[in-house]
Formats: sequence, structure tokens, C-alpha cells
Amino acid sequence: MPATPGWTIEDWRKAYHSGAKPEELIGELVARLDTTDNAWIALSDSTQLQAALFDLAGSLNKVGGDISRLPLYGVPFAVKDNIDATGFDTTAGCPGYAYQPKQDANTVARLKAAGAVLIGKTNLDQFATGLVGTRSPYGAVPNSFRPEVVSGGSSSGSASVVARGLVPFALGTDTAGSGRVPAGLNNLVGLKPTRGLFSIQGVVPACRSLDCVSVFALTVNDAGLVAGAIAGFDADDAFSRRAPYALPLDGPAIRRPGPVKRIAIPEHPQWFGDQQAEAAWNTSVSLWRQQNVELVPLDFSPMLELAALLYDGPWVAERHAAVESFMASHGNEMNPVVKGIISNATRFTATDTFRARYRKEELQRQIDELLADMDALLVPTAPTAPTIEAVNNDPVTLNSQLGTYTNFVNLADFCALAIPAGFRDDGLPFGVTLISGAWKDTELQHLACQWLNAQPTPLGATDRPRPQETPGAEISTPTVQVAVVG
Amino acid sequence: MPATPGWTIEDWRKAYHSGAKPEELIGELVARLDTTDNAWIALSDSTQLQAALFDLAGSLNKVGGDISRLPLYGVPFAVKDNIDATGFDTTAGCPGYAYQPKQDANTVARLKAAGAVLIGKTNLDQFATGLVGTRSPYGAVPNSFRPEVVSGGSSSGSASVVARGLVPFALGTDTAGSGRVPAGLNNLVGLKPTRGLFSIQGVVPACRSLDCVSVFALTVNDAGLVAGAIAGFDADDAFSRRAPYALPLDGPAIRRPGPVKRIAIPEHPQWFGDQQAEAAWNTSVSLWRQQNVELVPLDFSPMLELAALLYDGPWVAERHAAVESFMASHGNEMNPVVKGIISNATRFTATDTFRARYRKEELQRQIDELLADMDALLVPTAPTAPTIEAVNNDPVTLNSQLGTYTNFVNLADFCALAIPAGFRDDGLPFGVTLISGAWKDTELQHLACQWLNAQPTPLGATDRPRPQETPGAEISTPTVQVAVVG
Repeated sequence: MPATPGWTIEDWRKAYHSGAKPEELIGELVARLDTTDNAWIALSDSTQLQAALFDLAGSLNKVGGDISRLPLYGVPFAVKDNIDATGFDTTAGCPGYAYQPKQDANTVARLKAAGAVLIGKTNLDQFATGLVGTRSPYGAVPNSFRPEVVSGGSSSGSASVVARGLVPFALGTDTAGSGRVPAGLNNLVGLKPTRGLFSIQGVVPACRSLDCVSVFALTVNDAGLVAGAIAGFDADDAFSRRAPYALPLDGPAIRRPGPVKRIAIPEHPQWFGDQQAEAAWNTSVSLWRQQNVELVPLDFSPMLELAALLYDGPWVAERHAAVESFMASHGNEMNPVVKGIISNATRFTATDTFRARYRKEELQRQIDELLADMDALLVPTAPTAPTIEAVNNDPVTLNSQLGTYTNFVNLADFCALAIPAGFRDDGLPFGVTLISGAWKDTELQHLACQWLNAQPTPLGATDRPRPQETPGAEISTPTVQVAVVG
Repeated sequence: MPATPGWTIEDWRKAYHSGAKPEELIGELVARLDTTDNAWIALSDSTQLQAALFDLAGSLNKVGGDISRLPLYGVPFAVKDNIDATGFDTTAGCPGYAYQPKQDANTVARLKAAGAVLIGKTNLDQFATGLVGTRSPYGAVPNSFRPEVVSGGSSSGSASVVARGLVPFALGTDTAGSGRVPAGLNNLVGLKPTRGLFSIQGVVPACRSLDCVSVFALTVNDAGLVAGAIAGFDADDAFSRRAPYALPLDGPAIRRPGPVKRIAIPEHPQWFGDQQAEAAWNTSVSLWRQQNVELVPLDFSPMLELAALLYDGPWVAERHAAVESFMASHGNEMNPVVKGIISNATRFTATDTFRARYRKEELQRQIDELLADMDALLVPTAPTAPTIEAVNNDPVTLNSQLGTYTNFVNLADFCALAIPAGFRDDGLPFGVTLISGAWKDTELQHLACQWLNAQPTPLGATDRPRPQETPGAEISTPTVQVAVVG
């Protein structure tokens, strides 16, 4: 029997092409899982697993038994427990809120259709409100490198199970950094797509206008494969968007394809006293400079002001809109920190909301202009790596610090890719995030591959070496020109 | 001396090409204007006019005296008084609110740069809040065909001065129909562009996220010429947008270029008892059917629900955000109807605002699906044509009725073109509006030309015949393909 921990999707595919059987490999994997592991909220029982494998056999039959026609054939995965998957309650990290979904979320259905096998639902900061991984009645999720340190959140469990190599990929969500901070703290790839590229149908909303489903994987190759399987317009999700297929040549460079030459970095990054993170960043920056890329320090204050709108401004009312009636009747069943944050929504009026929207648009314009000559933006994924104890003692401040380089991204309509960037002196991983304009997801993957091939860190918290990263082929689509005035 | 009333832009250009001089033509025009006309809030005095003509001479000098290089050389125009123009106070229809703008609004500056000569600022429903043309301390603007009937609003004065042929074009604004309803009631072309195509810098906001500058003209040719002169990205306007230049082929048909074959119409249009409007619509519909176009009646209820969000929902808080401090200190100087409407904003919370946004997105999706097989949408511009007296007796209900076919358009991110469509039995003009998806402004102009050449109504309220309508050439721009996932 092969030992699957740390296998990439490519490893799983090779095994099946060599004749391995899903019932054996996945059966062994699930049997080995620790049901007391804080990363899981629910695991597939044997009945669920059998049903999943039965469905997979049916899918295979339909494609004439050719496993290469199911790109994720027999690949196990996990899903954050604010995303619907039939057979599992959706808890959003709050047992009192749990419901039985009638159908899979769009992304889960697409993964199953591609042959992937769901093995469990993962822990999270309740209602995806947090970046720490401690705000859950199912327990804090420990960092996969040092258990006294936070895992990061809110997609804490999904990051943990991928980092430890239990599954090759998992779905998270990302509104303010929940798909990136835990990737950074666990040496993973965290793909935060362009808003609307992956459907959010079947996801418990955090801020519905900003929410994204995200992907945790060990490699960029794998993250790109999963993105290819789940991307696409969904008429049932009002926030789904059709990709434009072509971008204007006179737009800001960050939205323009082409070879990457100039990458912006924050002029005076903040570290909140974390000298190890600062040192790791400085090392990363010098390594990037060796890669034939010009790094250009830029004023980061518009990004910070935009970020502040998310929690200190009216967007918190989106979280309120999502849980208002539950909070009114079951508020005592909520995590008190989460409840406190969401309660702030009632301070804001409709007028405040539109004023904040105007400020958002102005800051977006300012940021676009600032990045006009840049091909991407590079930031630390997280500026600190606090202990669970420290977060418990100061749950709001330390959480906010973690979002310094993530909070602004969804409001700015940017896509982002968190990637490993070596290790701190204390043995914790350090991560950086590549950011670009909407619909430039593929360009970020290419850039990330260039970096990881030059700095081949091991996979997650396993000791497996990183394979060569080779981004997939670009997709091109026919377009038509339109005249706007004349 | 030539008599300029009713001249189109083309007529003005011909006169200059034949040797006429702006100082003579415009001097005569301005001298003839009636300063007690309710359509005007302010007119250029002789000093302003001399300065404008001096600037024009300077511009002409810079292009080597070649007037063909100034596409609007010496063409007089008027501007709604919520749009900044140096030398005039901006009142927004409220004397207590007036301020002296330091610079021209972007659209006014572009028109002047193209050679056009501003001759006055026009009356409006206060703070552009109304569709009637009666809500102004400068007096109600009479309909240009029958003075006891409303002009429509809020761009009442701009429509009136164009309809009577005083100027060949004027700028209005359009948030809920203010650039279309007065066009319909005065036999004009009213161009409501795609949001963000014309800058709103220097415009007193109504609903800043929805506001558009609009164009009133006697012909589609002229409206297209003016649109060509004022369209373009403006970095100083956070709501300005770059045109995508290419649209996906798999998008809803209403957003897709191509020959127009199927036009949607409301299944059960509402007339609020106005049988003359209904009869005029039925005549129009039968004439459209003769033009080799299939008219397809569709359920209009999602459009009506979307429209209701604008005034009955939190968007009214945008109007509040624009005038909150003025209203707090000078509320007694405001039109009581306008003040009452804007005061409703305080009923809405941030949570309400996001919920309404979600509903808006859902309705937009529903409307897109409904129009998936359609090439455009055709509606009556206004369902009624009430008298000023009737509106004074019931200022809110009759105003709301006027917006039945216009209110939803800006929220749906559609562009629209109001065009003449013959006359009612009582001698009032009847108008229809062509609607399509964002960035399809030019397609609407082509379709409108086809209609007007088949139904050549006279120009505005003048007795001049309509010239052949010939839409300008399409503009094409280089694009680059982008890959989104891979």
C-alpha cells in the first residue's frame, strides 16, 4: 500500500494511471485520519465514502473508462465548512447555525464532476470572520509547523489538512485574506481568484459582494489545475462575472498582460515588532531582485486606507445582513468576538454606506494610478505569526494586524496568489503574495512558478521536495470588437 | 443675417464653412433670447460671450485657422445648472446652494475644446430630483408644444431650449430618466450613455454611483457628434470607466454586437389611464414591425422591481450623502417635495443597503437572462404627459409614473437612447427609448437612425424637417487577449 501523505494531484494521477484504485488509496487515507483533529469539523463516514466512490465509478463509465478524461479522478479533497456539500451539515463554525444543504455548492459540484472525492469539512473562524483560526467552538487549529502558533484563518482547517499532506488540495473562502493568511503561515499556495471567477453559490456569505471561494494547494501546478476545474460563469450566482477575454491596452499596467519587469512593493512595510518576519521579507526581496525583476517601493497608504474600510467601515454590515435573524434569536450561541464585530454593523446608515463606497472608488482609482507602471504588486502574506495564547489575550488587535497585506485586495478588485517564500529563523514558514488586477489570475501563476522554481521550498509541512512548477497553457477565446461612440 | 433657430450642428457647421462668423451668429442668437424664459437660470452676458469668442479665436489659431479641426466650431450650447461651467454659479436649482465653480466640468471643458460656445445654464428639478420640471424656485418649465403640460425633468430647461431650436444641443444629467423623459415630451433625441462613458467630474451628484451626463439634440447625428466629443476616460472621476473594447461572444445578446433582429418590448405596458399615449405606442409598435424587426413581448416585472429600489430603497441615501450638510443648515431653502424625498434616506441602515444591493444584482441577472435572445429593448419613453397643474396637485405620484420606463436603466447598467416616435392625437409628441447593455451606445444610434429615416418627424418643436440620419463610423481599437485560468 502506498503512503499518500504529501502527494500532489500529479502524484495521485500517476498512481491511478499505474493501476491504483480509489477505493484502496482513499479508503486507507480516510481510515488513518484522526477524528479528534481540530482541523476537521466532519469526516466522510464509510457510507458516504462508498457513495462517493460509486458515483465516481459511474462518471468513469460515462467517459468510457478513460481516467484521463476526469482531470481530478480519485483525488481526495476537503472543503471549508461554510461551503455546502450534500451529506454534510454546513455549520459555518457555529453548531447552532447548522443546516443540511440540498445540493452541493457550484464549486463542489464542479470538483466532483471532474472526479475529485470529498473526504471532509474543515474548521474555520466562525462565519469566516477572522484571520486567526481560533474563533471556533470546534477548537483552535494549530499551526502545522509549531502547534503553539496560530494556523491563520478563517480557512484554518483547509490550510492545515493540505499543509500536513492529508489531501492535495482544499477549498477555502477569502473575503479579507482568509484564503491567503493561512497559506502563508503553513507554507502553502493560496489562490484568491478574481471576484466572480469561481461561483459563490452555496457559500454562507461573509461579505457577499467581496466573497471568493479560494484554493489551498501544495504547488502552483495543483492550484491552477483546481482553478481550471472550478472557474466559470454561474447564472445562479448574482455575483458571478463573465471574463472580459480582452483588456484595453491603455489600462493601468497592473491589468495588462505582458512580460513582468517591474513589481511594486510596500515602501515601508509594517511588522508590528516581528523582526523574524521582517528579516524573511528582506531575504525574499533580495532574491526577487536576482530574478531579473525590478522591485519598486511604493506608498502603501491608499491600500491601508482601503483595508480599513472593510472592518472599520460599513462593509461589516454585509456580515450582519448574512446572519441578522440568527444573531437576533441565537446570539448567545455565537463566538463572542465574532458577535461583537458583527454587531458594529448597526452603527452605520445607508448614507454612510454610500459615502464609504465613494471613498472606495476614489482609493481604487488612486491605487490604479499608483500601479500604472507596474506589472504586479508583491507583499508579505502576513506581517506576524502570533501564538494562540497571544491571540486569546488580545483577539481583535492581533487579528487585524494579520490582515495588513490582505484586507484591501478584494475591495480593490484584485486577484492574488499567496506562495511560499522560505523560512524564518524560528522555523516558521514565511509567505509572500503576488497581486494583480482582475482577470490576471494566470499571469500571477506564471510569475509564481518562476519564483518557486528558483526557490524550491518543500511542500507544506511535509518533507517532500517541490516538483518543477509548470503553469498550464493560456486559454484564448474569440472576441468581438465593439464601438462605443461614433 | 441668417435665422438660426432650429439649426442642427450640421447647419451651424455649413454656415461657418460658408464664411459666417461666430460673433455675428451667436451674438444675434443671444441678443434674441428672452431672459424671463423659465428654461434659463443664467445666460451669458456680453462680457462672458466676448471672452468665449476670444478663446475660440485662440483655439482656431492653434489649429492654423482650419475650422474643420474643431468639430464643434462656433456651435452654441446650453448646460443644465447642476454641471459646473466657469463664469456661472452652479445652483442645482437651489439658490441657497449656489457656488462659483473654479473650473469647467470635464464634459464642458471637452465641448469648449472642440469649439462649442456655452451660452447659458438651464433650469432643472432641484438637485436633479424629479422627472417633471416643476420642482424649481426658478419656475416650472412649460412643455414646448403645449405650455400647460410639463416639460419633463429633471433636465427641463436643457430639453426646452433644444426643442425650441435656440441651441442645437444641450447637456443634461440622467440618474433615473432625467435625460430621457424631457426628450420624450419635447420630441427630442436624448442620449443616456453607458455609465462612466462621459465623466461626471464637476457635476452636483444626485446618485453618484448612477449619475450620467446626457445629451439633448434635434437629431441622432448631432447627439452622436456630441457624444464623440465628450466621451472618454477621466482619471479625476472615480466612476469613470474604460470601455472594454471587446465583449464576450457568449454574453447575453443584448450586450452583443451584430445586426438587430429581435427587440423586446414590455408585455403589458402601463399607461395610468393615458389612452393617447397607449394609442401612440401601439402605432409605433406596428411601424417597428414593418421594419424587418421582430418585436417580442416580455415580462417587465423584474425591471419594475429594480426601478422601485431607486426611490423606495436605500439609493435615495445617495441624494442624502450629496446634500446632507446643506439640508441640515438650509433645509428651509429647499423645495419641500425634494426635501421630503431626500429625508426618506434616514430610514435605511447599512444592512438594508447591502441587502438592496444583493437584490439589485439578482434582478440584473434575471433581466440579462430574460433578454438573452434579444438585440435591444424598446419602451415608451414616458407613459403619461400630465399638466403642470395636475403635478402640483399630486407631486409625487405623477412624477413616479413618469419614471416607469426609465428608472431601472441606470441600475441595470444599460445605455439608452430616447427618440421621437410621432405625435399623439392631442398634438403632444410621443417618444420611445431604445435600451441595450453597457458599451452598446453606437449600436443604439444605428438602430435609431434606421427608425427615424423611416419615420422622419420634424425637429423638436420647430417646423424644420428631419435631415437624413447617418450614424458616424464605428471606432475600433486594438485589444489584447487575456487568459484567466489555466
